[in-house]
Amino acid sequence: MTDDRRLTPRSEDFAAWYNEVVLRAELADYSPVRGSMVIRPWGYGIWENMQRALDDLFKETGHENAYFPLLIPMSFIEKEKEHVEGFKPELAVVTHAGGKDLEEPLVIRPTSETIIYSMYSKWVQSYRDLPLLLNQWANVMRWELRTRLFLRTSEFLWQEGHTAHATAEEAEEETRRMLGVYRTFMEEWIAMPPLTGLKSESEKFAGAVRSYSCEALMQDNRALQAGTSHFLGQNFAKQFDLTFQSEAGEEEYAWNTSWGVSTRLVGGMVLTHGDDDGVVVPPRLAPAQVVVVPIARGEDGGAVREKAESLRLQLKDAGVRVRVDARDHLSPGAKFYEWERKGVPIRLEVGPKDLAKEQVVLVNRVELEGEKRKQFLPEDEAVKSLPGRLDRLQAHLLARAVQRREENTRRGAASIDELADHFEDGAGFVYTGWSGDPGVEEEVKERTKATIRCIPDPDFRSSTPPERCVGGEKAEMEVVWARAY
Amino acid sequence: MTDDRRLTPRSEDFAAWYNEVVLRAELADYSPVRGSMVIRPWGYGIWENMQRALDDLFKETGHENAYFPLLIPMSFIEKEKEHVEGFKPELAVVTHAGGKDLEEPLVIRPTSETIIYSMYSKWVQSYRDLPLLLNQWANVMRWELRTRLFLRTSEFLWQEGHTAHATAEEAEEETRRMLGVYRTFMEEWIAMPPLTGLKSESEKFAGAVRSYSCEALMQDNRALQAGTSHFLGQNFAKQFDLTFQSEAGEEEYAWNTSWGVSTRLVGGMVLTHGDDDGVVVPPRLAPAQVVVVPIARGEDGGAVREKAESLRLQLKDAGVRVRVDARDHLSPGAKFYEWERKGVPIRLEVGPKDLAKEQVVLVNRVELEGEKRKQFLPEDEAVKSLPGRLDRLQAHLLARAVQRREENTRRGAASIDELADHFEDGAGFVYTGWSGDPGVEEEVKERTKATIRCIPDPDFRSSTPPERCVGGEKAEMEVVWARAY
Repeated sequence: MTDDRRLTPRSEDFAAWYNEVVLRAELADYSPVRGSMVIRPWGYGIWENMQRALDDLFKETGHENAYFPLLIPMSFIEKEKEHVEGFKPELAVVTHAGGKDLEEPLVIRPTSETIIYSMYSKWVQSYRDLPLLLNQWANVMRWELRTRLFLRTSEFLWQEGHTAHATAEEAEEETRRMLGVYRTFMEEWIAMPPLTGLKSESEKFAGAVRSYSCEALMQDNRALQAGTSHFLGQNFAKQFDLTFQSEAGEEEYAWNTSWGVSTRLVGGMVLTHGDDDGVVVPPRLAPAQVVVVPIARGEDGGAVREKAESLRLQLKDAGVRVRVDARDHLSPGAKFYEWERKGVPIRLEVGPKDLAKEQVVLVNRVELEGEKRKQFLPEDEAVKSLPGRLDRLQAHLLARAVQRREENTRRGAASIDELADHFEDGAGFVYTGWSGDPGVEEEVKERTKATIRCIPDPDFRSSTPPERCVGGEKAEMEVVWARAY
Repeated sequence: MTDDRRLTPRSEDFAAWYNEVVLRAELADYSPVRGSMVIRPWGYGIWENMQRALDDLFKETGHENAYFPLLIPMSFIEKEKEHVEGFKPELAVVTHAGGKDLEEPLVIRPTSETIIYSMYSKWVQSYRDLPLLLNQWANVMRWELRTRLFLRTSEFLWQEGHTAHATAEEAEEETRRMLGVYRTFMEEWIAMPPLTGLKSESEKFAGAVRSYSCEALMQDNRALQAGTSHFLGQNFAKQFDLTFQSEAGEEEYAWNTSWGVSTRLVGGMVLTHGDDDGVVVPPRLAPAQVVVVPIARGEDGGAVREKAESLRLQLKDAGVRVRVDARDHLSPGAKFYEWERKGVPIRLEVGPKDLAKEQVVLVNRVELEGEKRKQFLPEDEAVKSLPGRLDRLQAHLLARAVQRREENTRRGAASIDELADHFEDGAGFVYTGWSGDPGVEEEVKERTKATIRCIPDPDFRSSTPPERCVGGEKAEMEVVWARAY
């Protein structure tokens, strides 16, 4: 079916644009199950590329994959006090299986700390068994009342790393290392540059001692918590008797970390790069980096199709992910619309006239400085230049996102009033001093709907640390506020 | 910890051997959740290699991946009459979520035909939208009373392909194509050569018109149903209103297929190749194809470790998956035991004496004809010959499994008595004629515990088709009987 209706422009209704573009780019669809979505091939292909890149980064940093049960006994979840308080309201519970009522209800994992550390306690005896560095790719379930495609769904796909260490220092180092891996991945693959930093007490993971996060600024100037890494201390080790014999022969509790990113990242990609024509997929994540559209009319049809296929083979050999769109029943224009909506980085068109001139038409999905979006190029040059062009597009998307973030960041506010003014004025991130008083956090949230996204890491701190908290007290630290997804 | 206890020999207690070897090779472990297991890194690494190979084969045959919800409304499962009869006794049911009782219970998918075809009915309008060729990698749940690691667990990991076609012929062709893909994969990667063929009515998938399967013979002469491919006809299309407008402008129901393999294949690999020393992993599936063990004592320790690392780098460059086992607290002997138990195809040892002679010790996990298991080789030769050695090991495992299958196959039985004698005598597969009468199937099952594994494909048929059914009637077809997992 030809679908050439325009999308609701972002400026008119950003939330409506987002839903439309996710559906019409065929990234995902609503399902008949409340709160669960279907990830369609184009969206799943992007997720597969994310998975592969992350998995390589995890393995490079010494992690292995494993798989733990979907169902967790309710009593496990209840062991860690903060953990159960955080997750109990969102649990989906199996009460009945194999035609019988269960003696103990089982919950569908909302996260797997409890089941995983119960296994670790069986596997770890000595300091020689540490560190234990595992990751799991899995589905999890958190019953949500208000859901949005990719950003907040009851079921989602993610990875969760769970590690055990002999010392607090090592565990802390691991927590930070994985936060760094996430930052690298978001910058270099999604071209979505996050701030990183420590969460405040009120925003940390239920059961963690400290939580760190990646916070990325979306086009509507709201922040997306895009990945988290937690230092769990010995909270879970104590509940699940995860002990080891130290080198000195003492029985000690292990130190744990956990860290995760999810299919939410696909939503982050859309909100970072999409435009009024559709999704924009960074080349490193695109299931197809180039689409070749043969414009095959009349008697030259066969030759044009052959040329398209020859381009495909040449590009494939050059390591480019490429498809030919040879569908007969769609006009070239309809195909152009569709691939722009889906966000393929580069389109090549070839028609009878191009054949004679040994040229192709190359169209970039986004405008690059100093370059026309649509160019007529000799075929050889187009093919040879393509890997470099994809790299330039990737770099451009990152630079554009960094620039947008900086343009929408405000530094300094002497009071909650000033902070509120910044948000009234459309600010994204606002840096201020903070005393550490949760009362200030609550008041700001009430007034502005903004929360502390993080206490930023050194890379992101202001050159002059603020002296006063927005609440008026002496500032103990600098924090970054934003309205968040 | 050093684990040098011997395994229970296969000849003494095959079932005990299997459980021990799976646990002690650290492929998997029992979990605190009844019927669910934990897949440990070594087992999961094998599954990842299976996934990657299958995924490539699926993509080469035009399929794309997608992801559908874990939870399915009970009413969906109930729509297809045979489907619900087959699966209802095994369902795990969520009755409660987000702190409330659900209006309609949701089941954890035992398989996804119903939810997937309900989505297809939304996506497919015209013959131009067909064929629709999707695959999903997912966890599924079938509540089992008696479970065995990998072979039968309540939760398992699998892939399920679901396709929709405009004609019965195309769907049948797809069903057969994917059966062929499975056979290729099992032969070339797992070195586990299956018979393929049609299931009898009593053994087909609940909801299918016809089921095909891959049946592999394990070392205890029991058959493992290792993969299935189903022609679903229009059964689900009619229940989920999956219609399309044909080229002639008629409204028609689509034709569906589904096909799947699961983590059961890891169990099949163990049961096909394992020996009394442990698991044997075919090189194409091994997370590590080569392990280098430095025997680093005394003053040459540093140089030996350097040599091991240099071997690792050379082999990595040659495309070999290789690890160095540099653990200090284990003796070389303990490491040898461990890697033999885990089934690494080739071990390289390097010690101070080898250093001086520029040689390494190469040990094959299994005996190859015309070759010593343990060889002293010049370092260069060992490195250069390794990819070829891995190929030879892979080919040897397949040849050995084919030979074992043929040696344990009997052709012909004039009566149920004769068939029973074959099984008494330890036969694996037995070929006989069959009238098609389900009564004969039942009688044989009662007498011998054997069932019809399949009506074999041409590749596997006897050169002279049997004239009489074991029940005495005229034979309508040839069938293969076996006791099965």
